[in-house]
Amino acid sequence: MTPRNELAAQEVVSLIASGETSAEEVTRACLARIEAREPVVGAFEYLDPAYAIAQARALDDGPLRGPLHGLPIGVKDCFETFDMPTGIGSEIYGGNNTGRDAAIVTLMRNAGAVILGKTVTSEFIAFWPGKTRNPHNPEHTTGVSSMGSAAGVADMMAPVGLATQSGGSTVRPAAHCGVIGYKSSYGEMPTDGLMPMQASTDTVGFMVRHIEDAVLMRKALLGAKPAPSRPAGSPPRAAFIRTSHWEEAEPITHEVIERVAGKLRAAGAVVEEPAMAGRLDGFTEVAVTIQRFEFAHWRAYEWTHHREEISAPLREFMEEGRKTSFEDYNQAQITAAEMRTAFDTLFDDYDLVLTPSAAGEALKLGYPTGSSNFNRMWSLLHGPGINLPAGRGPQGLPVGVQLIGRKYGDDRFLADAAWVHERI
Amino acid sequence: MTPRNELAAQEVVSLIASGETSAEEVTRACLARIEAREPVVGAFEYLDPAYAIAQARALDDGPLRGPLHGLPIGVKDCFETFDMPTGIGSEIYGGNNTGRDAAIVTLMRNAGAVILGKTVTSEFIAFWPGKTRNPHNPEHTTGVSSMGSAAGVADMMAPVGLATQSGGSTVRPAAHCGVIGYKSSYGEMPTDGLMPMQASTDTVGFMVRHIEDAVLMRKALLGAKPAPSRPAGSPPRAAFIRTSHWEEAEPITHEVIERVAGKLRAAGAVVEEPAMAGRLDGFTEVAVTIQRFEFAHWRAYEWTHHREEISAPLREFMEEGRKTSFEDYNQAQITAAEMRTAFDTLFDDYDLVLTPSAAGEALKLGYPTGSSNFNRMWSLLHGPGINLPAGRGPQGLPVGVQLIGRKYGDDRFLADAAWVHERI
Repeated sequence: MTPRNELAAQEVVSLIASGETSAEEVTRACLARIEAREPVVGAFEYLDPAYAIAQARALDDGPLRGPLHGLPIGVKDCFETFDMPTGIGSEIYGGNNTGRDAAIVTLMRNAGAVILGKTVTSEFIAFWPGKTRNPHNPEHTTGVSSMGSAAGVADMMAPVGLATQSGGSTVRPAAHCGVIGYKSSYGEMPTDGLMPMQASTDTVGFMVRHIEDAVLMRKALLGAKPAPSRPAGSPPRAAFIRTSHWEEAEPITHEVIERVAGKLRAAGAVVEEPAMAGRLDGFTEVAVTIQRFEFAHWRAYEWTHHREEISAPLREFMEEGRKTSFEDYNQAQITAAEMRTAFDTLFDDYDLVLTPSAAGEALKLGYPTGSSNFNRMWSLLHGPGINLPAGRGPQGLPVGVQLIGRKYGDDRFLADAAWVHERI
Repeated sequence: MTPRNELAAQEVVSLIASGETSAEEVTRACLARIEAREPVVGAFEYLDPAYAIAQARALDDGPLRGPLHGLPIGVKDCFETFDMPTGIGSEIYGGNNTGRDAAIVTLMRNAGAVILGKTVTSEFIAFWPGKTRNPHNPEHTTGVSSMGSAAGVADMMAPVGLATQSGGSTVRPAAHCGVIGYKSSYGEMPTDGLMPMQASTDTVGFMVRHIEDAVLMRKALLGAKPAPSRPAGSPPRAAFIRTSHWEEAEPITHEVIERVAGKLRAAGAVVEEPAMAGRLDGFTEVAVTIQRFEFAHWRAYEWTHHREEISAPLREFMEEGRKTSFEDYNQAQITAAEMRTAFDTLFDDYDLVLTPSAAGEALKLGYPTGSSNFNRMWSLLHGPGINLPAGRGPQGLPVGVQLIGRKYGDDRFLADAAWVHERI
């Protein structure tokens, strides 16, 4: 029998619904794993095991609440929860409780989820890392920012972790931890109760171990209908985009993604390098300009009243943002909007983009934790993205590939990603 | 001498800078006007006159802080303030204080503004009105949702009112109160500290009595550079768009806007009805689908835990949102994105759109307060908008016209709007 903490989310809810296990049993299995491994991994910012069990028992004692009945979820500590503090990885907000739930947390509870605890986030969902270590090797980082959710799901502490992505905060830690990290189309999942950070790109994501579990979350929270699997003999068309950052990637990244491209071709898929890919050269700088300006302006309160409690690297980033002219920001937003329109046409010819998830294996612990250069441009384009684990590097750490889909085409995208995943 | 509370914002800051008046004197003049008129108008949700004076004195006692030094501003009660409660027009949050400032409030304070008090908003910046009455006739409404800021600025209680717009929340109350209501391009001004309501369109706006004061706010808060005035002999090209709601408008609205169109033509401007205007037919329903779905999902916490404290009409709207399928929402978002791209090309041929601000004069007090059908579609297109007072109706109440500009083209737009305003 699969240990209860290792079940897929879909299995958890179906086994609870059929009475083969209980919310309490699954929750206890997750808590046992956390107890054993948390000293090494450090995935949780806040955890009250007794309270998690109490939630599970209340669910077991009542009628089926919804499609997530009994499912334990780790919630990234940037989403408000009325019953747990929300620190956003910042000294400024550590221990803070606004007394309300983020909308997405309520939607999860209403669908029957057990909110297991709050998972570690980097400071203000940006680049200064929290305490989480890579479960595959605790001398290595997970990357930022959804580090606790990535590590916790990778280490079998929870079947699902709520995450966010503004630059590469879902896809990159997922790649480094060897899990599926799905980032939804911008604006579709509620970010109520999430302090806006890089508002033009802040997006909800999920860490899961199975693509079907991302599909389950979309169905449970939005009422989205899963798209049908691709019919036999109709493989997806993939645009292989190396980007101008290709040379920043380690050889293992090149090797893994070329291998994936080869497998897809062998399975009958079109894998081409589209001419328009070159238009993305320089687009990372556009994304950085927007992020800098927005961080400096949108965090004006913290800058003014709590500057000493902001990490030195983030203060420096905000200083640069304060020096960024409005003209440059404005032009960057215009460019971003034009690029979104241009790249929408790419998806008339291709079902998905294949591109690296990260430069390589997870770096050693420390700062910085690596670069989001393979993610930022896609976040700014607002479409869905996903990391699929695709191999191991020379240090034995996971390496993934990133798929990108058409904005608002998430359900079709996830079905196509499943097709790809089966071939890797 | 112009009474200090009747000065334009630009005059306030320049007269304070030159020592001809003081922040305290201006603030006291505003407070005296509020004391005299507030029992009739009801513009403020929270006001502590002694504290406002204390802020002004502290500014008078120190060096010039910035481009808004000494300027009293009424802040719509949906933006967080660390020193005043923030109720969002809802029983649920009445008297609540999160202990922090919305970013835009901090940016105002850092530029030297006096936060005069919190102005009345409709419930959750939607349609259930607050206590504010129309200063031109207290038997009439101001329209929603930035009602306190509109009425307060119209009634000379403050030179500037901070506002928001998701449907028509800045332009419509501005039209009904006879002030300038400027709504910025979506995403450009920080909405940190504003609970997201109709997240796809929530945008910062300002109530002012002079277009130059909106320019001042952009310069002070974003560092935007004012665009040069139109050179002589180069009048703007205006797209006159009646929309499919034209027949919902009162004869006075038709009369006023036709008169404005005539004046612009007489001044040499191109005023044409573009063929593509027909593409907007049905776009209001697209906006309503998005608003409904987002309200139902993004307010999940309040729906679940505080349903009885939500007004009956908003509960009904949320019920409809809960019944709206994800497919319909998703399709509406796709249509909205396509329409944004299509309408961007309109601004290759025209500098601005001329269209009604509201159906007619302000309605009698009660519910509903009128319709946002002339605003919602433009909010969803994400460009800047402005109400310009343009006449009076048969009941003696203000009637305005609405101008719409190209997304991210606000500075040029405001200069063109000033050209139009001078000709009305």
